[in-house]
Amino acid sequence: MNTTPSSIPRTSAVVFTSAQRLDDGVVERRFTLGEVPGILWTPETATPSDPRPLILLGQPGGFGLDRMYPRLVGRALSAASDGIATVALEGPGSGTRPPLPGADQARADLRRALAAGEPVSDDIIDRLILPVVEQSVPEWRSALDALLRLPEVDEPVGYAGGVIAVGVRLAVVEPRIVAAGLFAGSYVPRATLEEARQVTIPLHVLLQWDDEGNDRQAALDLFDAFGSREKTLQANLGGHTGVPPFAGDDAARFFARHLK
Amino acid sequence: MNTTPSSIPRTSAVVFTSAQRLDDGVVERRFTLGEVPGILWTPETATPSDPRPLILLGQPGGFGLDRMYPRLVGRALSAASDGIATVALEGPGSGTRPPLPGADQARADLRRALAAGEPVSDDIIDRLILPVVEQSVPEWRSALDALLRLPEVDEPVGYAGGVIAVGVRLAVVEPRIVAAGLFAGSYVPRATLEEARQVTIPLHVLLQWDDEGNDRQAALDLFDAFGSREKTLQANLGGHTGVPPFAGDDAARFFARHLK
Repeated sequence: MNTTPSSIPRTSAVVFTSAQRLDDGVVERRFTLGEVPGILWTPETATPSDPRPLILLGQPGGFGLDRMYPRLVGRALSAASDGIATVALEGPGSGTRPPLPGADQARADLRRALAAGEPVSDDIIDRLILPVVEQSVPEWRSALDALLRLPEVDEPVGYAGGVIAVGVRLAVVEPRIVAAGLFAGSYVPRATLEEARQVTIPLHVLLQWDDEGNDRQAALDLFDAFGSREKTLQANLGGHTGVPPFAGDDAARFFARHLK
Repeated sequence: MNTTPSSIPRTSAVVFTSAQRLDDGVVERRFTLGEVPGILWTPETATPSDPRPLILLGQPGGFGLDRMYPRLVGRALSAASDGIATVALEGPGSGTRPPLPGADQARADLRRALAAGEPVSDDIIDRLILPVVEQSVPEWRSALDALLRLPEVDEPVGYAGGVIAVGVRLAVVEPRIVAAGLFAGSYVPRATLEEARQVTIPLHVLLQWDDEGNDRQAALDLFDAFGSREKTLQANLGGHTGVPPFAGDDAARFFARHLK
């Protein structure tokens, strides 16, 4: 079994490796931060005298930045049209990064349970999700330290996307994050349900009503548990990958309301 | 017990009784249709050569037009800013209209059950809601006949608001209604749950997560039952009357998407 040391020391600085101007006046810059690659999108009108709020774009576990790029850039362009910067990081165990300890075994156990038509046990969910949380959360926090030293981005910060357990932990521990748009599309560890009660920031939670791989009741229980005074659940018909375009628009308005 | 004859013959014409221009270029006209009062709001730019789609503004049972006016005019101005006309009717048993047969008894039984901490029986729900459905639906359809003869309004038509059982029945029987924004804030008769499977138009369903008077699971079951291929549930924290302003904005965008 590997051990995975923390891959972004808290003193790391963003090292830009490429830059291009996309349509719509958005600058896309690839970077590394310690050992971790990432992409930062900023409206080209962002300047040191007019810095922009930042949304951290979370990703489903196990998919790399390259595979997720089309969806990420779509969200980046949408946020930029509201004047907001966005950033994505290669997740632990994803893309070119080394696998997380125990991840292969947990995925094999998950596949076996699903193939046998058995319920997915809490133990499998914990082994699948908690290592991602343990590794992702400090990486995002170190990335935030580094990114907020760039003159063209500034607080407040939002978190958007999956893994939902990562978003919940960040919402609890990272005070610079003031709003989160979460995708109820991954398994929910028992510990996450407990942590949810400590979340107080405004939340916008997307649920695909017919998600093949997930437990609708677990998602509803999680939504119920959140301690936030402003929380919205938006459930849309369709499977895991069928989030309709207007749901993205509604999430974008949620962030525009809270970050600007 | 009263009997309540149908109050709007299908051949009735709209008789305007007053008109005023609101801020934002919206014309508000009060009218009667048979014995039933109503209010029509149209953007003043609506003309015979540029007629506007129409949203029927449903209301919670038992509240009169006067009491609901502030909320109704808010929705009317919002729709008008998207170029859409809106109309409200005094509901059966509401305002100055005669009480519905059995309504007082059903409400007394409801209060008794709530005071005793008992579950509200299907029988009470049926006696409370079904007479409203039976009377409202033909009235809305006759009103639609009359309103669509006005040169400044035209199909398509949407239905927005409560009583949810009225919206479900209208969505099933009235082909001119192409989209519905429903408020899951009233009791759901068993018959409505069955009818929901026949609904195929796009739906936007609002649910107040902590609604004091209603059964959250019944609302979720109803959402699940709808046969529509596009359906969105938006649940917000708060009680029956705590719908947040942004929820109204999201509903407005739903109608703008489907009526224009």
